[in-house]
Amino acid sequence: MPKRTYGEIPGFPPGSTFANRTELAKSQVHRPNQGGICGGADGAESIVVSGGYVDDEDYGDEIVYTGQGGNDPSTKRQIADQKLILGNLGLARSQLDGNPVRVIRGAGGDPKHSPTTGLRYDGLFRVVDHWTATGIDGFKIWRYRLVALESADPPPDPIQSDPGKPVSRVETTIQRLVRSTAKAVGVKRLHDYTCQICGVRLITPAGAYAEAAHIRPLGKPHNGPDDADNILCLCPNHHLLFDTGAIYIDSSGQVREIGSNSALGDLRVTSSHPLNWAQFEYHRKHHVSDEKTD
Amino acid sequence: MPKRTYGEIPGFPPGSTFANRTELAKSQVHRPNQGGICGGADGAESIVVSGGYVDDEDYGDEIVYTGQGGNDPSTKRQIADQKLILGNLGLARSQLDGNPVRVIRGAGGDPKHSPTTGLRYDGLFRVVDHWTATGIDGFKIWRYRLVALESADPPPDPIQSDPGKPVSRVETTIQRLVRSTAKAVGVKRLHDYTCQICGVRLITPAGAYAEAAHIRPLGKPHNGPDDADNILCLCPNHHLLFDTGAIYIDSSGQVREIGSNSALGDLRVTSSHPLNWAQFEYHRKHHVSDEKTD
Repeated sequence: MPKRTYGEIPGFPPGSTFANRTELAKSQVHRPNQGGICGGADGAESIVVSGGYVDDEDYGDEIVYTGQGGNDPSTKRQIADQKLILGNLGLARSQLDGNPVRVIRGAGGDPKHSPTTGLRYDGLFRVVDHWTATGIDGFKIWRYRLVALESADPPPDPIQSDPGKPVSRVETTIQRLVRSTAKAVGVKRLHDYTCQICGVRLITPAGAYAEAAHIRPLGKPHNGPDDADNILCLCPNHHLLFDTGAIYIDSSGQVREIGSNSALGDLRVTSSHPLNWAQFEYHRKHHVSDEKTD
Repeated sequence: MPKRTYGEIPGFPPGSTFANRTELAKSQVHRPNQGGICGGADGAESIVVSGGYVDDEDYGDEIVYTGQGGNDPSTKRQIADQKLILGNLGLARSQLDGNPVRVIRGAGGDPKHSPTTGLRYDGLFRVVDHWTATGIDGFKIWRYRLVALESADPPPDPIQSDPGKPVSRVETTIQRLVRSTAKAVGVKRLHDYTCQICGVRLITPAGAYAEAAHIRPLGKPHNGPDDADNILCLCPNHHLLFDTGAIYIDSSGQVREIGSNSALGDLRVTSSHPLNWAQFEYHRKHHVSDEKTD
């Protein structure tokens, strides 16, 4: 598989412009000379939005992007169904892995957000959804919703909440933020996306999904290291339970529930992924409350 | 339980200042005349950061906040252990529910980020972590990491990713964004935080946890309604599988896996939570690919 670079290409900040695809390809910001998606089964690193597909929708910080394939380059109309393969699969995989996608806009795209000539790198977006639809031309297309990584969520509206009964005003907030780091993706691959606590392997049409749980958290004030030996491969359910201190790993490597004396079994380990067991002590000390474990 | 307002109080945008706690309480931005946390078992709506606890750390967009209790108001030193009750439990609950917390800074807090006199509302933060520690004075304290809701994540560093082996550069991106809406919290309560697909109920020290899955997604281009009858109460694992189209609900209300002919069982429904079954048709049509279901 090709070597991919997720994230920005040094020397080419957002706003960098390119006269043509050849120049763009040379910069590595978007390597293919033709394709709109630079990606494969392992993920997608960049896309070009240039009006090549009639179903694209560009809202600036938000883009509804059409997958590749099935269209006639000359007329730009869809003439066949698209499939979840190649770059289309790559964008879905990048959604699962949480890898950022470089977005390049070209003349020919929505005039409101596109350069008048040539191409322009417009920064990093994340893929937040992928789905299928019947395109304007009557063929199946894959669609992706991308949101600019820098665009923060707007502050939610106030809501009156009467505990116990549903509340009326709409409010959107970030509920749970799961971070992905480069090393985290490596750890997930070492475990083939299998949860080290329950052994479940979640399969989606775009491939397997797991989350990386830092045993000693990153960031202030824990400042845990982003090293593979400080990372577990967990399913979302056990990631939540581990982070909230509902479960922990004892000094003998057994998974335990707070307030319960029976162990849930051994943590699933593999020789290719050694762990720093001292980090579990930090987790027990700080994230598992003795109010509950006593 | 008190009636809570999560989010901003109309008429008091970030930057609003107050001469004293009485004025602040009158504005409803922070209702208690004394306590640093306005909250209880059902959640916390606001906190005051004013140097009342020696263990507080203020980094501007990020605050490491100390729970309440166990300190001597006159000396501000800890003289007893803190417990996960009252406002301390409320901040943990707000983390689980994804509700925003109003942050008010008062003179006496970190000079770099606090007003010189009186109090100032500094906007909405989200609680991203809670844990225990032994405070400077040797007693157990509860700690909370709050991050400004408006502060976007910085664009990640580029990483060279050789598929198959761990990569070296640190990168952080948002991997999975789970949104919480006011109605969503109501639906979760109707199901007592029990997954409508597998029946699991995740218990954390701060209470039960579940996620709200919009059957027809919110936002462009789906524009699903944020109504209770378009929301399911799911565990994180089944939320992920549902959103990615790995599982779906068929017209007879059975949960099905793509590519499998046997049903996983009936969706768990309750008369107090009627569903708009037409939304499942939208989900099947757009999020479940017939490439996989054929």
